[in-house]
Amino acid sequence: MSLNTDWLAAVTFDSNGLIPAIAQDAKSDAILMVAWMNAEALSETVQSGRAVYWSRSRARLWRKGEESGHVQTVSEIRLDCDGDVILLKVEQQGGIACHTGRESCFFRRLDGHANDARWTITDPVLKDPKLIYK
Amino acid sequence: MSLNTDWLAAVTFDSNGLIPAIAQDAKSDAILMVAWMNAEALSETVQSGRAVYWSRSRARLWRKGEESGHVQTVSEIRLDCDGDVILLKVEQQGGIACHTGRESCFFRRLDGHANDARWTITDPVLKDPKLIYK
Repeated sequence: MSLNTDWLAAVTFDSNGLIPAIAQDAKSDAILMVAWMNAEALSETVQSGRAVYWSRSRARLWRKGEESGHVQTVSEIRLDCDGDVILLKVEQQGGIACHTGRESCFFRRLDGHANDARWTITDPVLKDPKLIYK
Repeated sequence: MSLNTDWLAAVTFDSNGLIPAIAQDAKSDAILMVAWMNAEALSETVQSGRAVYWSRSRARLWRKGEESGHVQTVSEIRLDCDGDVILLKVEQQGGIACHTGRESCFFRRLDGHANDARWTITDPVLKDPKLIYK
């Protein structure tokens, strides 16, 4: 019996065959990261219940946590009105999503007014990346 | 006196000069929508405190709410580790971000298991789009 992939037809991939996926912490609602998926990554995510992305830099599937152990267990998958953005609600293993060792990749906040704006790092490094990626 | 735009140098736009921007409700932490910005849209957002996007379909600046009245007042701007995704925390006027009249564009949830998955509409239409866009 073949898999029912009708649900995939509602998903619009870009000209590179990719769709951006937002990972949101299911408990805190913090936005952890944004990465890309191709159809294979999305299908495997649905089947395995674990976030799988497409690494553009390495040009291969990236099973989040495969090196770091920071696996994302997916509790919900949502699609936006245009069908071109995916939202994952995840449980973040280790509480660290970012390769810098922070909870979230969005650790810089724009401070100041328009004429003296600057990025401020607001979030602490929870674990030294050298200890995450051995 | 010219504006200080050093902060813009940390922002990586794609080959089309665009960067995706996530709008998150500052109070509920709900993810409302994802749209695109070019440097001009981002600069105007910083200066005006109101979300301004780049409409790819209309190929022009899109001051969110210009037709619908559903303006987004920006309370915080964040940038991710790679500098290629923007996160806005916003106050959503009217409580409606989606052109379908829903609070959020992410109103479809994937239900079922891999072999019988389907998208379920989970969020109500709060206002008829015909009454929003006259």
